[in-house]
Amino acid sequence: MSSKEAARERFVNVFQDIVEELTEILKSYKMPQEAIDWFNKSLQYNTPGGKLNRGLSVVDTYAILNNTSADKLDDAQYKKAAILGWAIELLQAYFLVADDMMDQSKTRRGQPCWYLAEGVGNIAINDSFMLEGAIYEILRKHFRQDSYYVDLLDLFHEVTFQTELGQLLDLVTADEEHVDLSKFSLAKHSFIVIFKTAYYSFYLPVALAMYMSGISDAKDLQQVKDILIPLGEYFQIQDDFLDCFGTPEQIGKIGTDIKDNKCSWVVNQALLNASPEQRKVLDENYGRKDDEKEQVCKQLFKDMGIEKIYADYEEEVVKKLRTQIDQIDESRGLKKDVLTSFLNKVYKRSK
Amino acid sequence: MSSKEAARERFVNVFQDIVEELTEILKSYKMPQEAIDWFNKSLQYNTPGGKLNRGLSVVDTYAILNNTSADKLDDAQYKKAAILGWAIELLQAYFLVADDMMDQSKTRRGQPCWYLAEGVGNIAINDSFMLEGAIYEILRKHFRQDSYYVDLLDLFHEVTFQTELGQLLDLVTADEEHVDLSKFSLAKHSFIVIFKTAYYSFYLPVALAMYMSGISDAKDLQQVKDILIPLGEYFQIQDDFLDCFGTPEQIGKIGTDIKDNKCSWVVNQALLNASPEQRKVLDENYGRKDDEKEQVCKQLFKDMGIEKIYADYEEEVVKKLRTQIDQIDESRGLKKDVLTSFLNKVYKRSK
Repeated sequence: MSSKEAARERFVNVFQDIVEELTEILKSYKMPQEAIDWFNKSLQYNTPGGKLNRGLSVVDTYAILNNTSADKLDDAQYKKAAILGWAIELLQAYFLVADDMMDQSKTRRGQPCWYLAEGVGNIAINDSFMLEGAIYEILRKHFRQDSYYVDLLDLFHEVTFQTELGQLLDLVTADEEHVDLSKFSLAKHSFIVIFKTAYYSFYLPVALAMYMSGISDAKDLQQVKDILIPLGEYFQIQDDFLDCFGTPEQIGKIGTDIKDNKCSWVVNQALLNASPEQRKVLDENYGRKDDEKEQVCKQLFKDMGIEKIYADYEEEVVKKLRTQIDQIDESRGLKKDVLTSFLNKVYKRSK
Repeated sequence: MSSKEAARERFVNVFQDIVEELTEILKSYKMPQEAIDWFNKSLQYNTPGGKLNRGLSVVDTYAILNNTSADKLDDAQYKKAAILGWAIELLQAYFLVADDMMDQSKTRRGQPCWYLAEGVGNIAINDSFMLEGAIYEILRKHFRQDSYYVDLLDLFHEVTFQTELGQLLDLVTADEEHVDLSKFSLAKHSFIVIFKTAYYSFYLPVALAMYMSGISDAKDLQQVKDILIPLGEYFQIQDDFLDCFGTPEQIGKIGTDIKDNKCSWVVNQALLNASPEQRKVLDENYGRKDDEKEQVCKQLFKDMGIEKIYADYEEEVVKKLRTQIDQIDESRGLKKDVLTSFLNKVYKRSK
């Protein structure tokens, strides 16, 4: 077993503890068994099947801040950090169950979306609520006595609300039934990706590990936010770029942003630079469920040099982020390594 | 204007302040106007249109605990108590938007359900999330500095999760497509009504007012819970009874529990006492979208004397609650009046 597999296995074991603890809570309420079974199934189906990057990064960040490596943390420390990691994974599960219903997606992580699973349907809405509810049940159980407990709650609420704001703007901007490219803009794209992705995927894991490490001066939280939010934006721009320009082998899926009328970085760059003729081509071909029209858009993006624009953007943002990281004030215990480690995971990744 | 209308108007005015405060938060995030407008519309459409009993009861309870009446509270005190009241109304809005989708309801409070409003559809799922998110935004803004802030958060989380547990059991028990009365039981009915209704509608408003009044010893919270949970159960049993036996003029709507295969107190009492022949009649007629079959069930309930069973239950539970209220220990500041006032609103109400 590789050290990466071992790290994953140790992390997943904590999730099984969490499921048992939640089951005990339901039993203490004398909840009938059929409903306990249902909740268990929803937890297992929706929470641990992804890459777990967000959850694992809480543990890794906590280790860096405490001058050690994750595999050297003792069981009690490890478990607490891992619980914060799983709280993010539960938050993501809550969003994804609902997003799949709102997008009418068919599959997620290689299995039918939860709302399409046998006998589930619209009950998935309440299941998504309970995935969120589980976060606060486990935080109360494990952190109620800690001085930073209320900060954890405030942080989860703030980030949850920000993610919902990003999702709302995405939903009202990218209407699959009424294609209207004039609703798109780079400013909206930036808002959507920062709110819908960057806060919960990049800032949240680091901020949680900082609270648990007692390195949570407002100045330090601001220092990491100033780097992790643009880094999260860069990550999502890269995602948008790969959706259009990556091969299926590279990205492990077939990109559908063009057909789905997504307010992607790629189309926004094209709109920014398009001649009236090119704009007309986009208006007539973007957001249609049609292979040929998709191909027309892809060719136009190539002709407009979007690949070069992306490469220049990437070099510039990475250079800027490296400079910012370099200037971090470590005097209160924050470590540049936390941020370098995140940046290195994103820079020039192909999937 | 009656004093009741004046009380309602003062309370509703606080909601308009809340909407403005939430708008300011979105503006501070530089959220595009179209999404701000959408959130405003969802708040206005889904939150203030009901009877507001839950929200108003926070203010009334706070007044009683502070030896005054609601109209004599100064503006600052009034507003804080009213904000807690609106937090419950937002919680209810969050549940109702989602419940209507899960039940495929058509109307709510005399207008189309939110998910059926023009252009909304499944975006309603994210809107329900944001109604919940609004609770924590306004609590943070107005209570962050108070010593009981973390208790408010814990209480909201606990009650939210309990309500979701009640909803889950209701959903897995009352499947409209597969009528199976053997899934029903009085124990399940009791769990569903206590978790789905009693905690958030009865216990939550009083507990919030107690925290704000500094009367929040664990013994006092337990004293009111021991009365408000059975009182909430009684309220819902009365609701079930009126759905079947009340006239439309009395209850202001047409009862549909029989046709909807609801796990109601009425059918559970009938199942408890039915002969094999009566059980057969129920199996063949309950939960069908058919006027004649509904009538057969109603006649059977009459023949089985459910009205007498209800009247006996009501007298017994009210007698027991009055005795319990009488024995309340007021030494730490709790007032019997808080509970008497709730009981008097429920006892022998016809709508």
